[in-house]
Amino acid sequence: MNAENDVKNELGLVHVYTGNGKGKTTAALGLSLRALGGGLSVAMVQFMKPDQGSGEYVMAKKLDNFTLMPLGLPHLVDPKNITDEDRKAAHDALLIVKEMLYSGRYDLFIIDEINVAMGWKLIDVSNVIDILKKRPKNIEVVLTGRYAPDEIIEFADLVTEMKCIKHPYDKGIGPRKCIES
Amino acid sequence: MNAENDVKNELGLVHVYTGNGKGKTTAALGLSLRALGGGLSVAMVQFMKPDQGSGEYVMAKKLDNFTLMPLGLPHLVDPKNITDEDRKAAHDALLIVKEMLYSGRYDLFIIDEINVAMGWKLIDVSNVIDILKKRPKNIEVVLTGRYAPDEIIEFADLVTEMKCIKHPYDKGIGPRKCIES
Repeated sequence: MNAENDVKNELGLVHVYTGNGKGKTTAALGLSLRALGGGLSVAMVQFMKPDQGSGEYVMAKKLDNFTLMPLGLPHLVDPKNITDEDRKAAHDALLIVKEMLYSGRYDLFIIDEINVAMGWKLIDVSNVIDILKKRPKNIEVVLTGRYAPDEIIEFADLVTEMKCIKHPYDKGIGPRKCIES
Repeated sequence: MNAENDVKNELGLVHVYTGNGKGKTTAALGLSLRALGGGLSVAMVQFMKPDQGSGEYVMAKKLDNFTLMPLGLPHLVDPKNITDEDRKAAHDALLIVKEMLYSGRYDLFIIDEINVAMGWKLIDVSNVIDILKKRPKNIEVVLTGRYAPDEIIEFADLVTEMKCIKHPYDKGIGPRKCIES
């Protein structure tokens, strides 16, 4: 309980939230809320997500020191049919990450769904690690998304797997598998 | 990605975040942020936690429609030496939960660390389930904490285990076990 409650003690670490369960992006949003309350500056950039109009985008506009930036194309990426456009968008997103990360403007820097972008080979893992290695000190970095590659697990300081134990039933069809949350 | 982004579609469910990894309380805070942005009213009550002054308490005072209520005694509960005072505090907290839950004032109702309180037998699982069963409709309930009892897993609609895969090293001592996050 203690470690979880003091983001300031953990500045400079790289966290990973991965796995097939719910709570990866939401845990990063919760860290944001806590960090903002502690007077820190927070950015969350999002690979492969457009602005879906959900609550966090509304709140980001209201809250000082919280930058939320969806960098996905309007369509979802289909892992069975990855296009050059998808790769270009992810590549461009990584350039934006680099620029924002190196600006020193943020204390907590969240890169949402980047694990998926690496897992699906939209961007290169070694490139990401290289960018992270050269970041300014004292920035807490959080990488979210399923399919975190082994190299990222190895590189990170703190890794949590969100594991789906149970998922709501689809009416009349029986239990949904733990694949959609 | 989609299901995770629309709390409104899931109103009325009981979520559980359990396991030894980071991100249980923070995921609940993230859900709060998203729900607030969606115009919902949120309460988070906390078993066994005093106000520790961390960021979420600061933000709760700033944000409309967000009630954060730590209901723990100033000392931490020691599972090897649970006192009558600890049991009384948890029992009283459950009465407050019941009153707030039944008030209908909240759309998202988070009961932080209640799994631990049940796991350590400070409060009775069947009593908690009975209270939850009789709650008004359309309230999304989230139960967090390690040691979620089997009956709670069975009762819940959606269960995620936050599993510690890797935890920061203690300097010079070697890897810390996944027990403190």
